[in-house]
Amino acid sequence: MEKMSSKPVRGTRDILPDEMVVRDQLEQTILNIYRAHGFSRIETPALENVNLLLGSDGGENLKMLFTILKRGDKLKAHEGSTPGDLCDMGLRYDLTLPLSRFYSNNAEKLEMPFKAIQIGNVFRAERPQRGRFRSFKQCDIDIIGDPSVTAEIELISTTSKALLAIGFEDFIIKVNDRKLLTAFILQQGFKPEDVGSVCISLDKADKIGADGVKEELTAKGYDAGMVADFVDQAARVTLDTIGTVVDEPEAVADLHRVIETVTRMAAGRYTIAFDFTLIRGMGYYTGQVFEVSYGDVGYSIAGGGRYDHMIGKYSKQSAPAVGFSIGFERIVGILMEREADQKRPSKRIALFHAADADMAEVIHTADAYREAGYQVNLITQKKKMGKQINACEEKGYAGFLVYGRDTVVKPFN
Amino acid sequence: MEKMSSKPVRGTRDILPDEMVVRDQLEQTILNIYRAHGFSRIETPALENVNLLLGSDGGENLKMLFTILKRGDKLKAHEGSTPGDLCDMGLRYDLTLPLSRFYSNNAEKLEMPFKAIQIGNVFRAERPQRGRFRSFKQCDIDIIGDPSVTAEIELISTTSKALLAIGFEDFIIKVNDRKLLTAFILQQGFKPEDVGSVCISLDKADKIGADGVKEELTAKGYDAGMVADFVDQAARVTLDTIGTVVDEPEAVADLHRVIETVTRMAAGRYTIAFDFTLIRGMGYYTGQVFEVSYGDVGYSIAGGGRYDHMIGKYSKQSAPAVGFSIGFERIVGILMEREADQKRPSKRIALFHAADADMAEVIHTADAYREAGYQVNLITQKKKMGKQINACEEKGYAGFLVYGRDTVVKPFN
Repeated sequence: MEKMSSKPVRGTRDILPDEMVVRDQLEQTILNIYRAHGFSRIETPALENVNLLLGSDGGENLKMLFTILKRGDKLKAHEGSTPGDLCDMGLRYDLTLPLSRFYSNNAEKLEMPFKAIQIGNVFRAERPQRGRFRSFKQCDIDIIGDPSVTAEIELISTTSKALLAIGFEDFIIKVNDRKLLTAFILQQGFKPEDVGSVCISLDKADKIGADGVKEELTAKGYDAGMVADFVDQAARVTLDTIGTVVDEPEAVADLHRVIETVTRMAAGRYTIAFDFTLIRGMGYYTGQVFEVSYGDVGYSIAGGGRYDHMIGKYSKQSAPAVGFSIGFERIVGILMEREADQKRPSKRIALFHAADADMAEVIHTADAYREAGYQVNLITQKKKMGKQINACEEKGYAGFLVYGRDTVVKPFN
Repeated sequence: MEKMSSKPVRGTRDILPDEMVVRDQLEQTILNIYRAHGFSRIETPALENVNLLLGSDGGENLKMLFTILKRGDKLKAHEGSTPGDLCDMGLRYDLTLPLSRFYSNNAEKLEMPFKAIQIGNVFRAERPQRGRFRSFKQCDIDIIGDPSVTAEIELISTTSKALLAIGFEDFIIKVNDRKLLTAFILQQGFKPEDVGSVCISLDKADKIGADGVKEELTAKGYDAGMVADFVDQAARVTLDTIGTVVDEPEAVADLHRVIETVTRMAAGRYTIAFDFTLIRGMGYYTGQVFEVSYGDVGYSIAGGGRYDHMIGKYSKQSAPAVGFSIGFERIVGILMEREADQKRPSKRIALFHAADADMAEVIHTADAYREAGYQVNLITQKKKMGKQINACEEKGYAGFLVYGRDTVVKPFN
């Protein structure tokens, strides 16, 4: 048999020990904050019914589904068979659809409102490119069953504390409300069925500028004058003027409450700001949406929003819901770069021993250092121990000792 | 569209908050012990090349592969298409095959010997039955690159300490050596090609007894006298006699060294014992094998062994390897039963607040309790707060307080 390639499958990657230390610490930090804030972790299977996935609001993600072949007699392939014929399950592409299914399946066993933590891998058959993988970790909190913006405030507060705990400061939370933007779009003369398409164009303002948005909307067939008026006016809307621009007093009051409350909580460590052109892609948002930007990193590090109509799709009764997701993989990327700049002090030491040493005694020695907080790696010494010691230093060990010879760790620094 | 079922797919399950607390604590406890003992965590994708999976030593597991349909133009289905035609990837069925691939892919970046931690889900299309699921967590440590039994001793020591840290005592580690058993089988007159088949029958001694094993082997066509002699003699072999029964002085010395060393380390908290009839199913073991039994639990809670020929299959050069796996799901089951008997003290409290309260102040109050180690859930009070308070008590909260009214937590107990 020919030698198999040892590469991971296209678009996925192996994670090496140094990164796993960073990932585990990050996950633990976030999880501890989430739990302290009254959220409860749940887990759903990576596999879901293929019809549930295909029938969902997943948009572009549905084109990137990994589907699982039926097994045994159930598999009946023929010319032109589609994934729907051949497959009964698929891999989840996000954690929100599984949460909706989970809530519907387990509602009577859950606290109300239900505050969920989900941390787990999702799968998308993305075209592989730098920094974008086909399997990646998502890290979400959601509150189901609270229609008021106290839920938004809790999610923003909890996510901000997690970001502070990770060591991020001075990040900016942008907030908008789909209800306000929709009212404004309609008021400007667009039709209800145009709202989605107008939002898609407006969402590109960051990349193509106001003129680009105008061009795109005009190309879509909307009146050039109406488009110009809409884009220019939207850009000028501020938190102070929004209440006079659209007639949605409740949504405006909620927006003021969220921004004012979060600003006081932030106490200058981070900022929250209204951004009337913030869209966020997912079609299922119904109210406030958020996005967190950080320093000169060219992408958001967290985002979320209210989606009041999704849970009802799978449940006997609908339930209001808000979610906030931390960009786990993006933050790992930032932390790994920092790590490269400045290695953290290691608690890892090597204990060298002879091949025929009394291992019970060697381990007993190691345990004393473990109790003192060291991570002790036992290494059988070879004739040229110098080479082995150099390798330990290269790998970032804090120090080493030799069983039967040293009684204390020899630090490398 | 008809309402979709909200059940998880066949053979999988949703994990509720109470169990997630137990699972997270268990994983963290095990991971801390593993890291303290010099092991490094790695992660591989859940997806692997379907040919790698199908070409592996997976035995029965290969019949239970979940395979992923090719996408786009690559999918060309026709009458009689097989999974091999239709699929390019599959879900991993264990963590050992991915470790072999990982080691081959990353060897030059790893410490030697490489001491790996892997904790992750694997997938098998098992016939669903009580306590057996199609997606479950495995928890493995492996040492690659150490041919000596110091590796076995380290794995046994580390696994034992993890089990002690979980709160298990008085467990029994059974140990055998495939080399000794193979030598004995050949010595009894069986042919080299019969060894696998003889082992499969001997492995059933627990269930069908010595007479059942004899019957099965005779039915397989082996001489009845030879079979009777073999089974009776095997049952009588002890650690004291093994050295006189087979001519494998090195393996016998290694066995003595492991058992004697571990016995001293155990200091009476657990036991290690030679069991000449211990087989462990996987065909790839080449040396010592271990299995841990605990109390009256009718299954092993951990197991492993040496597999010196597997890494080489995917690598430029072969490397000796030993692994030890903790039965994560089984241990969760035991801990959940204990939990039901005796609820642990909770650090979870509720802070009730009015719908229009100043949330910055409410959260400020909650934070003081969070800093004191509580997990604080904010709840908007309804008219009938009594009902809400009762719900909290039922859900196992430690106590509650009402913002603006109480200054200290009212404990439920």
